[in-house]
Amino acid sequence: MRTSLSDLQRWLIALRSNKLFEFVVIGVILLSALIIGARTYDLQPGWQLALRLMDIGVTVFFLSEIGVRMAAEKRITDFFRKGWNLFDFVIVTASLIPLEESQTVLVARLLRVFRVLRLVSIVPELRILLNALIKAIPRMGYVAVLMFIIFYIYGAVGSLLFEGVNSVLWGDIAISMLTLFRIVTFEDWTDIMYETMAVYRLSWVYYLSFIFFTAFVFLNMMIGIVLDVMQSEHEQYNREHGEGEAGEMHWVKEHTQQIETRLARMENKLDKLCKRF
Amino acid sequence: MRTSLSDLQRWLIALRSNKLFEFVVIGVILLSALIIGARTYDLQPGWQLALRLMDIGVTVFFLSEIGVRMAAEKRITDFFRKGWNLFDFVIVTASLIPLEESQTVLVARLLRVFRVLRLVSIVPELRILLNALIKAIPRMGYVAVLMFIIFYIYGAVGSLLFEGVNSVLWGDIAISMLTLFRIVTFEDWTDIMYETMAVYRLSWVYYLSFIFFTAFVFLNMMIGIVLDVMQSEHEQYNREHGEGEAGEMHWVKEHTQQIETRLARMENKLDKLCKRF
Amino acid sequence: MRTSLSDLQRWLIALRSNKLFEFVVIGVILLSALIIGARTYDLQPGWQLALRLMDIGVTVFFLSEIGVRMAAEKRITDFFRKGWNLFDFVIVTASLIPLEESQTVLVARLLRVFRVLRLVSIVPELRILLNALIKAIPRMGYVAVLMFIIFYIYGAVGSLLFEGVNSVLWGDIAISMLTLFRIVTFEDWTDIMYETMAVYRLSWVYYLSFIFFTAFVFLNMMIGIVLDVMQSEHEQYNREHGEGEAGEMHWVKEHTQQIETRLARMENKLDKLCKRF
Amino acid sequence: MRTSLSDLQRWLIALRSNKLFEFVVIGVILLSALIIGARTYDLQPGWQLALRLMDIGVTVFFLSEIGVRMAAEKRITDFFRKGWNLFDFVIVTASLIPLEESQTVLVARLLRVFRVLRLVSIVPELRILLNALIKAIPRMGYVAVLMFIIFYIYGAVGSLLFEGVNSVLWGDIAISMLTLFRIVTFEDWTDIMYETMAVYRLSWVYYLSFIFFTAFVFLNMMIGIVLDVMQSEHEQYNREHGEGEAGEMHWVKEHTQQIETRLARMENKLDKLCKRF
Repeated sequence: MRTSLSDLQRWLIALRSNKLFEFVVIGVILLSALIIGARTYDLQPGWQLALRLMDIGVTVFFLSEIGVRMAAEKRITDFFRKGWNLFDFVIVTASLIPLEESQTVLVARLLRVFRVLRLVSIVPELRILLNALIKAIPRMGYVAVLMFIIFYIYGAVGSLLFEGVNSVLWGDIAISMLTLFRIVTFEDWTDIMYETMAVYRLSWVYYLSFIFFTAFVFLNMMIGIVLDVMQSEHEQYNREHGEGEAGEMHWVKEHTQQIETRLARMENKLDKLCKRF
Repeated sequence: MRTSLSDLQRWLIALRSNKLFEFVVIGVILLSALIIGARTYDLQPGWQLALRLMDIGVTVFFLSEIGVRMAAEKRITDFFRKGWNLFDFVIVTASLIPLEESQTVLVARLLRVFRVLRLVSIVPELRILLNALIKAIPRMGYVAVLMFIIFYIYGAVGSLLFEGVNSVLWGDIAISMLTLFRIVTFEDWTDIMYETMAVYRLSWVYYLSFIFFTAFVFLNMMIGIVLDVMQSEHEQYNREHGEGEAGEMHWVKEHTQQIETRLARMENKLDKLCKRF
Repeated sequence: MRTSLSDLQRWLIALRSNKLFEFVVIGVILLSALIIGARTYDLQPGWQLALRLMDIGVTVFFLSEIGVRMAAEKRITDFFRKGWNLFDFVIVTASLIPLEESQTVLVARLLRVFRVLRLVSIVPELRILLNALIKAIPRMGYVAVLMFIIFYIYGAVGSLLFEGVNSVLWGDIAISMLTLFRIVTFEDWTDIMYETMAVYRLSWVYYLSFIFFTAFVFLNMMIGIVLDVMQSEHEQYNREHGEGEAGEMHWVKEHTQQIETRLARMENKLDKLCKRF
Repeated sequence: MRTSLSDLQRWLIALRSNKLFEFVVIGVILLSALIIGARTYDLQPGWQLALRLMDIGVTVFFLSEIGVRMAAEKRITDFFRKGWNLFDFVIVTASLIPLEESQTVLVARLLRVFRVLRLVSIVPELRILLNALIKAIPRMGYVAVLMFIIFYIYGAVGSLLFEGVNSVLWGDIAISMLTLFRIVTFEDWTDIMYETMAVYRLSWVYYLSFIFFTAFVFLNMMIGIVLDVMQSEHEQYNREHGEGEAGEMHWVKEHTQQIETRLARMENKLDKLCKRF
């Protein structure tokens, strides 16, 4: 009995690392994406039934695929240790939670949309790209905090000063910050400015200073990230090429010094020899 | 008979590489561009006739030029092996396909517009530039896929949630993605947001998160390309300058080590000599 | 008496550098930010009273904290020598100035908003970031002057030419410059252009040349800053790693030359020795 | 008589290079800029007269200053050899051309606006900055040509296809290209797209492909310029630091090789010596 189980597992491991199996999974993910897209159109009942059946098929396939990958591990806990496996598991099982009421049909559909994200977890190049993007987040952290402080202060000031002018745009600090984000995207921002300038003539100072501050911080953030990435690239390059060029340079310098000392000593000895004869 | 043909071919090759001939071709391309431009204006019948005659002249000239370049090759298949030749051939012959019906007159005119592109294939600097642009495409490939996934997911979610609010903007997934592209360009995006916020109060989360994701991915793509280009520049520089500075450094280090070993040996021998006397 | 005072001061210094104390201060700043934010909403009288009490509490806390930090210094003048201390002092005391009239209540509230900025002075990472931003200002100086000259000239020309077309947008040089800033942000700029093109057909030259000039100067400014930052990074790197790689390289070159001279001399002597035997 | 003239000239040269004189000139330029700005406001007759008098004063001052600088040269032709001198001369004399008719008063005023540009020619830092900007132009040349070709082709296609839809936006190729520039700035571009999509359902392909092409070319242009600047900085650095690090590296490598050969020879001789005893 044991051997037969082991045989099955060996077959599952072979299946999991099979290139063809991978392509089939990618194909089913794309099919699932197409089903999601097709559902947003108004379709005839026949097509709707077909889509529902295909949707059930896709769900069953995903469950079996996850099952194969789980069974191929020595222990089930090994499966959950990899972040991307957990990611796949949550996405696939989330759409299985039984929801009956009318409103929750929408939720079930929304959960199914995220199946497209499985493309990221299965294509290695996209996984690498996403890992790189995730690594870039901490670099942006404190700059984001600084940006938020600017937004918060301008939001509070805007709400205090301009609430009387237009309470739809400046009613409270949250609405004000949304309005400020709109100003940052330059979306009809002059309409907002002209409106408040009719009451407070100098309010253009508020808008222009805000645009300058945020643009300035953003510009510096961008440059900061570029430099940060370049520096880490450079360090990695040094690590890969032994101790790096600079390290070798230093080694050569020190040893040239030692060679000089030795040569001076040797010449001295040679001179003594010459004198004796 | 053979010699006379060879003479003609030699003359054609000389013509093809003649600088003056190149300038004439560039001149005719510019003339063809002017004809295309002039046709978009409402002209008097006299001018229209002149344009039509000039157009025929340009077509005849282009055909003979292609003919010269084909005849100047040893075999006709050699001509089609170069991508830019094929490009020229398709552009010139495409406008010759006989089209009679009223609607297809427009198609014939459109095909003639692309003759301006021949400027790219004949001016070497532009050809180099375009080759560089084409080389940049694969670098952008997977990022474009990631961008498309983001658009697809947000498009599906938008279509599911907001179709009831405004079916012109969120009717199906294709229209939703076009609307999302509009939001990315910040074109009246707050109008769209305010409309859905009237129904779903928290829908600003949808818009802001979408803008952040796409901007974030785009920013990283740009930095990635800059770094990619810089790295390839650096590698090319190393290739051109022998084995590169780092390679030479390593060579010097190893040989300094050998020199040290030899010097230690030599000093030893010198010491022995000194002792004997 | 002296010892007890010194004991108190030692205790204050310990308190000032206590990590927990720092976190409490950050907490109170965040609370003060929340109070500012909450005040922009329409609240029930009960909440309003609570906010007022909390506000008094925050003010008292800030005053004692500043007091602790002042008392922990040997001399009070030492406290004011650090820029960030002065910054904190001004922000905290500014809101204490007694203002009674209705209009000045607004001013008092506005002054309280800037307390959020204390977050920048207390979190070291944000302080570093802000110092970096401040360092970037002089680099931008002359480019800003050039930008201002472009705006001034175009503003004067716009005001001279287009005042008759629309005096709201082009009334005087100040309004014209605000309109030009709007054009730079691409905010409904074509509406302005079409309006003047109805009178002066060639006025698109004015708009397009302005957009090109400012975009061109801005682009160069950005590149200039990136290069400037990179250069200063490189210099700093060299400073930190001894005299830098290039310096070591030069050293090695000179000493290799000296080794060669000495070796030639030594070989000569060796030859003499060989001849004698 | 000769000596007295020479004395005057020596005094003029001293005046020209006097720092105070430079500051006075800068002051007068700023005054002239203020006059230009002030004239765009509606002023009382008294002020208008004052401005007119000041304007005459400024013109006289500029003429004398140019005169001083001309007289301080050995030959007048030397003065015109420097580009910036010619620039100053044209700006100052242009406003002297007698214009009497009502329309040309505007022209005279416009010419006076360009006096602000003298600030660029007199402040050395701005002159350096502008020279750097001018140097960047050729780098952008061929990319600008490529951009123009894209605009021309899309302009012709747009004019052919969409003239029937909206002749104000797509009437002829020139208007179409202006509309395309508007689309590039994302200014109400979706309004234009939705209008043509009502007639040609697939016309979004035209807009999206145009935005992608121009953004792509622009992105590459920017990266190209950054790399170009960096490369020229690097070359300049190498030129300033002797033959550069890479050159020194190569020198060291070759000489280490020579040292090795010599040492092998010396060891051989030493061995012979040892054998004899």
